[in-house]
Amino acid sequence: MLNPKRTLAELKELRDLTADENGAWRVAWTDTWLKARDWFNRKLEGLPVEQHYDAAGNNWVTLKGESPKALLIGGHLDSVPGGGWLDGCLNVLAGLEVLRRIAEEYQGKPPVTVRLVDWADEEGARFGRSLLGSSAFSGTLMPEAEKDRTDKDGIRLEDALRRCGVELGRMLEAQKEQENAAAYLELHIEQGPVLLDMGLPLGVVLGTFGVERHAITFRGQAAHSGSTPMHKRKDAFLAAAKMAPEIYHITDRNGGVCTIGSCVTKPGIVTSVVAECTITLDQRHLDAQALARLKFEAEKASQRFAREGGLPEPEWQTIWRIEPILFHPVLIELCDEAIREVAGVSHRLPSGPLHDAAEVARAGIPTVMMFVQSLHGISHNKIEDTKEEHIEMSVRALDRLADKAMRWILSR
Amino acid sequence: MLNPKRTLAELKELRDLTADENGAWRVAWTDTWLKARDWFNRKLEGLPVEQHYDAAGNNWVTLKGESPKALLIGGHLDSVPGGGWLDGCLNVLAGLEVLRRIAEEYQGKPPVTVRLVDWADEEGARFGRSLLGSSAFSGTLMPEAEKDRTDKDGIRLEDALRRCGVELGRMLEAQKEQENAAAYLELHIEQGPVLLDMGLPLGVVLGTFGVERHAITFRGQAAHSGSTPMHKRKDAFLAAAKMAPEIYHITDRNGGVCTIGSCVTKPGIVTSVVAECTITLDQRHLDAQALARLKFEAEKASQRFAREGGLPEPEWQTIWRIEPILFHPVLIELCDEAIREVAGVSHRLPSGPLHDAAEVARAGIPTVMMFVQSLHGISHNKIEDTKEEHIEMSVRALDRLADKAMRWILSR
Repeated sequence: MLNPKRTLAELKELRDLTADENGAWRVAWTDTWLKARDWFNRKLEGLPVEQHYDAAGNNWVTLKGESPKALLIGGHLDSVPGGGWLDGCLNVLAGLEVLRRIAEEYQGKPPVTVRLVDWADEEGARFGRSLLGSSAFSGTLMPEAEKDRTDKDGIRLEDALRRCGVELGRMLEAQKEQENAAAYLELHIEQGPVLLDMGLPLGVVLGTFGVERHAITFRGQAAHSGSTPMHKRKDAFLAAAKMAPEIYHITDRNGGVCTIGSCVTKPGIVTSVVAECTITLDQRHLDAQALARLKFEAEKASQRFAREGGLPEPEWQTIWRIEPILFHPVLIELCDEAIREVAGVSHRLPSGPLHDAAEVARAGIPTVMMFVQSLHGISHNKIEDTKEEHIEMSVRALDRLADKAMRWILSR
Repeated sequence: MLNPKRTLAELKELRDLTADENGAWRVAWTDTWLKARDWFNRKLEGLPVEQHYDAAGNNWVTLKGESPKALLIGGHLDSVPGGGWLDGCLNVLAGLEVLRRIAEEYQGKPPVTVRLVDWADEEGARFGRSLLGSSAFSGTLMPEAEKDRTDKDGIRLEDALRRCGVELGRMLEAQKEQENAAAYLELHIEQGPVLLDMGLPLGVVLGTFGVERHAITFRGQAAHSGSTPMHKRKDAFLAAAKMAPEIYHITDRNGGVCTIGSCVTKPGIVTSVVAECTITLDQRHLDAQALARLKFEAEKASQRFAREGGLPEPEWQTIWRIEPILFHPVLIELCDEAIREVAGVSHRLPSGPLHDAAEVARAGIPTVMMFVQSLHGISHNKIEDTKEEHIEMSVRALDRLADKAMRWILSR
């Protein structure tokens, strides 16, 4: 029988093992993360499952069914440094509870195969490359491009992985785990305030936002703050600063979200007009065309602000981009049903942050995510939290969704 | 007879001795600076003058006159690292030429005493404290407050001074050089584009701007760039950025200049709304009341922008401030006359940057400055330059001003 209180107890056990007063320290490829994974493997004792790590370090737990067609449920035990107690591991432990219920109900042989996966290094907190394990699984990882990554102490990604038994050059072999995968489910804490503001415990995720991420550099001219009349200045900060209110106007018109997260001024001294100003701009939208409009309008505005200040055209440098990833329409309906059965009411929302589910969907596997309300709307922080009552509801809703998904897989 | 071409030749000689392809390296309290001072002292050979360093390291060259009342002419041989060939040393070498002319004309005994001073460490380039020698002369220096200063290599100001024969604790004894000082003249390259834009070689300086220099910190809330709706954000960069166009509106209404020279964002990462943003604001005006208005209006605007973004009141931290310093009305008239006699036309303008003349004026000594046109409007840079024809005119105009000032001193 499904026991959501056990999930709660196990979440607390994991927190006691891997967190301190500053938050959780399950950073991928560190000893604390390996300790969390060992602890998880011991939870499998007595279950009729097979466990192995794939070539990318993803941990697979397989409950063989009558059909080789597999329902996948996934999450990640790794956290950011000083992270919360739910981000990532809620999915793994709720999935474990669902796996136990299915194993028990079908006496170890469900109609379809059920696989639980703990993705390796979702956060990218140490080496700056998120979704590492799941992108190896989907095949979008380019190992050559990751070869020169180091952490802040200069340790190479390749060496840190080897220490954990993963060869960077062979990670793409994890793609073979795609075999027979028929659907993928992921439960996650929302990390935003939408469900909190609506007073809802659970929501269905429509997909993950596409992202356009750029560094924009405005080039003006250094000039003495005392001797340079205002109308003679080529002020790089002035042009860059005008982008701040502008991105709010752009999202008012087009939806989505835009963020200027960083601003760097050069020479950056109190007695000089700013010669060079670089801001980062992160733009996200669930609709590919609307995302393109966000970027187009920001580009036009940056050119206009440069022109107004007598500056040359600003330089746009792509940091990263990904297309919007829409989840599977049938699974969205099934998730909606499951949530309504447990919570009475459901809500559909996009995901701003990326998740491993996006990589699985990119591999062509029907995917859906479920969000549980986030108190304070905050995560990646020790104060990340969710009401215990909502955590229990999320385990029950995931279980119902798993049932519905298994039936759907069989019907195809 | 006055020989402005000799000043030009000596400027080039000094450049050959103390500059390379990256500019001048006469940074105060370094060997190159000491070399420049030795070179200068050798230029005094054969002149009927007395030379000594005061307790602050200022170099005094005195041509005794019939009257003990003294006309002072001053400049500084020190430069910023990679500085120009004129900033500071033009004044010293033009003053030397004027001294030679006066010594010759009056056979070593002019009607009033004439003193040339090379101020120590005008730039403050190495230890971050400008006007060091002249503030000791004026008595505004507080040696205790400078005790902990170090350069970027950790060398203490006190130790660097001692190596050059200056005891920090005794620097204020330089005040005794004020005795009998009746007027102070300083010629300087403009370091701005005003005379260049007007096509004028020379201008009279009305005074130095007062300065209000503050760091303004806006505090918002970090939030995930993907999961936080725009209307839920407390974006510290948005509030700070609105200050950039605002300071242009404020100077449109009140005159003066305002500069945001630096912007620092925290956490300053591409995936987070800015939690904290600190900008520096440098405001300058020749009129004390108008300067107060500049600051008042910027404060009000910063509070309004914080309020609009749901942020608490921003924190204003004073970095530095100085009142406007107005030069002497009679000397301004005499300088105007001298310029018109040499160049046909004059112009009156304030000085944005501070100069040693400001410290001399603070000591109650009637003071005026003359500016010579700056090509590109740029200084503190190896490309700093002035037409040779304008340099020669500036020496002639300084000479005429010295004559007029001597007559004025005698008439009082």
